[in-house]
Amino acid sequence: MKLTILKHQLNEAIQHVSKAISSRTTIPILNGVKIDATHQGVTLTASDTDISIQCFVPLEENGLQIIQIMKIGSVVLPAKFFIEIIRKLPAEEIEIELLQNFQTIIRSGSSEIQMVGLDAEEYPLLPVIEQNKTISMASDLLKAMIKQTAFAVSTTETTPILTGVLWSLADQKLKLIACDRHRLATRETNMDVSTDQQFNNIVISGKTLNELNKILPDQNSLVDIVVADNQILFRMQKILFYSRILDGTYPDTTKLIPQTFQTELTVNARNFTDSIDRAYLLSREDKTNIVKMIMHEDETIEISSSSSELGKVTETIETTHISGDLLKISFNSKYMLDALKVLDTEFIKLSFTGAMSPIIIQPDEGISLLQLILPYRTTN
Amino acid sequence: MKLTILKHQLNEAIQHVSKAISSRTTIPILNGVKIDATHQGVTLTASDTDISIQCFVPLEENGLQIIQIMKIGSVVLPAKFFIEIIRKLPAEEIEIELLQNFQTIIRSGSSEIQMVGLDAEEYPLLPVIEQNKTISMASDLLKAMIKQTAFAVSTTETTPILTGVLWSLADQKLKLIACDRHRLATRETNMDVSTDQQFNNIVISGKTLNELNKILPDQNSLVDIVVADNQILFRMQKILFYSRILDGTYPDTTKLIPQTFQTELTVNARNFTDSIDRAYLLSREDKTNIVKMIMHEDETIEISSSSSELGKVTETIETTHISGDLLKISFNSKYMLDALKVLDTEFIKLSFTGAMSPIIIQPDEGISLLQLILPYRTTN
Repeated sequence: MKLTILKHQLNEAIQHVSKAISSRTTIPILNGVKIDATHQGVTLTASDTDISIQCFVPLEENGLQIIQIMKIGSVVLPAKFFIEIIRKLPAEEIEIELLQNFQTIIRSGSSEIQMVGLDAEEYPLLPVIEQNKTISMASDLLKAMIKQTAFAVSTTETTPILTGVLWSLADQKLKLIACDRHRLATRETNMDVSTDQQFNNIVISGKTLNELNKILPDQNSLVDIVVADNQILFRMQKILFYSRILDGTYPDTTKLIPQTFQTELTVNARNFTDSIDRAYLLSREDKTNIVKMIMHEDETIEISSSSSELGKVTETIETTHISGDLLKISFNSKYMLDALKVLDTEFIKLSFTGAMSPIIIQPDEGISLLQLILPYRTTN
Repeated sequence: MKLTILKHQLNEAIQHVSKAISSRTTIPILNGVKIDATHQGVTLTASDTDISIQCFVPLEENGLQIIQIMKIGSVVLPAKFFIEIIRKLPAEEIEIELLQNFQTIIRSGSSEIQMVGLDAEEYPLLPVIEQNKTISMASDLLKAMIKQTAFAVSTTETTPILTGVLWSLADQKLKLIACDRHRLATRETNMDVSTDQQFNNIVISGKTLNELNKILPDQNSLVDIVVADNQILFRMQKILFYSRILDGTYPDTTKLIPQTFQTELTVNARNFTDSIDRAYLLSREDKTNIVKMIMHEDETIEISSSSSELGKVTETIETTHISGDLLKISFNSKYMLDALKVLDTEFIKLSFTGAMSPIIIQPDEGISLLQLILPYRTTN
């Protein structure tokens, strides 16, 4: 292998695949990043067994020559050092040359770096995924759906399946659900697929989806999603992102969401969020996060929290309207803030079926997004 | 106490005094911030016994009314919660009212916060400092001098006096020295004081000076420095910053700095720093930080580091000139980078008295700044 490549483009590719490098891997070769040079361009691969990311750099782009291949070949280089040194090289052009025994020389300006490489043949193969279950969607929509659900996965390993987000495709609708026993987040969207295209019980680690979200482009480009037995592939323009599908059956959460409500109210999202945030500050000091909400006849709500040591926060907010029974209800203000943060609308709708039943938080119109949090049972 | 105050100005004052709030204090009242309202304005005070900071907010500034005092008085409020909640209050105007038993009500827009306060009478008094040893200097110069020395203090507590920076004033010169047995940083400046004004063995914690640097204004305003027996006061326009002076006698470091040199070279600071930085990346992976420098006949220097596991970095840099013996010398690249970072000139001068003697790093001209690092004794 011998080639020259532009620093900026190599760096960009490195940044993408670096999301799959774990510092805790027990497989030594996975501490490396694999470099494949062909007559088409250079491909970088990194993997921590849960996630594998491959990024392709073409020979040229928009008339700019990025790579010159003198000799094709492959090598695995120590990832952490490779990533850092490439970023700091002095010249715009970088030469990479593979010598005997996987020794690799990197030259740039007045710098010469010799790296101890490993045999690319020993690098694990990426999963082979059949293309028969592909769906395509806009990158920014996928990004939003992940953001609106993945925060609500369980962070404890007691029920591993709950650390993932459930994906299902049926009736031309893609639905994501995350749930950690105290709260649930779900988002649905219409898909332009044939009616018989469907999958269910595809559960992907919340952590993995957060990594995917860092790579997904913001602009409206298409992402292909290919589902196989135990792997899912997200295919972007130059990036392949593979993730393991979690083992196990995701619990049925449909019964958790009430279908009829005793009380509904609409409120300005910003005012409500800011008030909860101030009450949260105090509740957090007491380590309980308990905040109380009282609905009044005059269509205002009172948000409060108190701590014997520090004091009390009381907030009064006007609602757009309240219908049904006026409730007193207590909840975890951190969970409420998490749910509110991803709503991104001017007004939100809160729905209740009593002080001991789930609270439903939704945008007052528009997208099919539902956040549920369980209330606290308090003595007052 | 009853007053209204503008949020922005209160917040700014809080940010300044918050640097003196420790989360580890064993004196409960120091978890609080003291508020004094007089007919002149509002004073905030915070202290962790090592540092005490007082910030004054006047009734009005540049024609803008900031504070309205309805009733003077004092109270101590829980600092962490007070700091966070003030920043998040909904309205620009904040009302603070002291009730019975140090209960304090804070009102802003639709928010009402009740805080459990403490008796201001029980808050420790600030040190009384005689004004007879005042010196004045430009804030930005003081800031630069601290930045150029404080990084080199010892971080281990084995010799507590070395965790501080030594200040001395003699012959109309102010000199700062920091030293941690492996390196030394010193900066001197001329002062417009009378010839008999002097002090010595004033040692101030490096940590404290870093906190002071966050508060010192960037623009060229004057700071008064008042030295007392065991306290030093930095007086800015609205802020008083008190620090304890460390106990003990600072060791004599004058003999550490060679007076004559066998070798001197001048090099572009940016090129040299970048090369050391790349060599450092590799040396850090081996946890040694050892980088080797070899001077060549053709007035180039070779910077290199190597690791049996990862490989080798070799850098070749042109110098402006080398005079004297050509040396091979090894040093801690992290210490070298720290020293280079505060030099801030286009060219730097390196001076040597042999491969086993201290390396002196200085700007090639201008300010009186000297960095010293000890070399490594290596086998090759």
